[in-house]
Amino acid sequence: MPKRYGQACPVAKSLELVGDRWTLLIVRDLLAGTRRFQDLAASQKGIAPNILSDRLKLMERHRLVTRAFYSEHPPRAQYTLTDRGRDLGWVVGALATWGTRHVFKRARLVHEDCGHEVTLGYHCRECGTRVRGASVGLRRVARPRAGARRAR
Amino acid sequence: MPKRYGQACPVAKSLELVGDRWTLLIVRDLLAGTRRFQDLAASQKGIAPNILSDRLKLMERHRLVTRAFYSEHPPRAQYTLTDRGRDLGWVVGALATWGTRHVFKRARLVHEDCGHEVTLGYHCRECGTRVRGASVGLRRVARPRAGARRAR
Repeated sequence: MPKRYGQACPVAKSLELVGDRWTLLIVRDLLAGTRRFQDLAASQKGIAPNILSDRLKLMERHRLVTRAFYSEHPPRAQYTLTDRGRDLGWVVGALATWGTRHVFKRARLVHEDCGHEVTLGYHCRECGTRVRGASVGLRRVARPRAGARRAR
Repeated sequence: MPKRYGQACPVAKSLELVGDRWTLLIVRDLLAGTRRFQDLAASQKGIAPNILSDRLKLMERHRLVTRAFYSEHPPRAQYTLTDRGRDLGWVVGALATWGTRHVFKRARLVHEDCGHEVTLGYHCRECGTRVRGASVGLRRVARPRAGARRAR
């Protein structure tokens, strides 16, 4: 179980669920579709099988992935992102964007249709415009939303 | 020093620099402007001063923050994000967006001008359109970019 930060902040609360080592890299792999345990183990070089297993159990408990068995004897599991887990694609995308700009400059995030680089940005549906990061703030609301919304 | 993942991937490379506990929460605080060491310590409840000090030294080594002294006797430091560090605002924003949707539903990321909620999205400058996450891919490039670009 990850340590808590004890901060009433959506960034801190998110990191309590996804800030563990490996978690977002597993999400990255699963964004491409369902993966078997051994496929994840092969992709995440250097992770011990028991650590990967623990991490996936924690992700299942946090409702980021679902597990299904594709073989009963021997038992073999595969994993799929939930809507909640798939919504982490924006966090993975933001890390990929930053990484291609500042650390791993041999790659780009591109629009598959035209091959050109994409940028991340905020959009205000009310104003119908793009919004600079400096014009975005965090507001408390009286009535929390009931359910999760799809991000894409 | 954080452990390396050994993966040729911008997400993994980014997490090697910013995946440590507390780092992104310190970035969150510094996005609002320069902060003194004791302000950061007060905001990050539960962090031991030596851990905060170590983390800030590592962030300085990774060129995410710069340090300046506002008092010589006794020595007292304050910290400011570099452009490279400020560009992590997108990662913090993506975590905040996910957090307000799925974990901490008492807050929203809003457009300061109109007070309405903003969404994160990809934009293709070439096509002049918003791009769905499913239409974004990672491409290797022959010639890495020379310098960092400002994100906002």
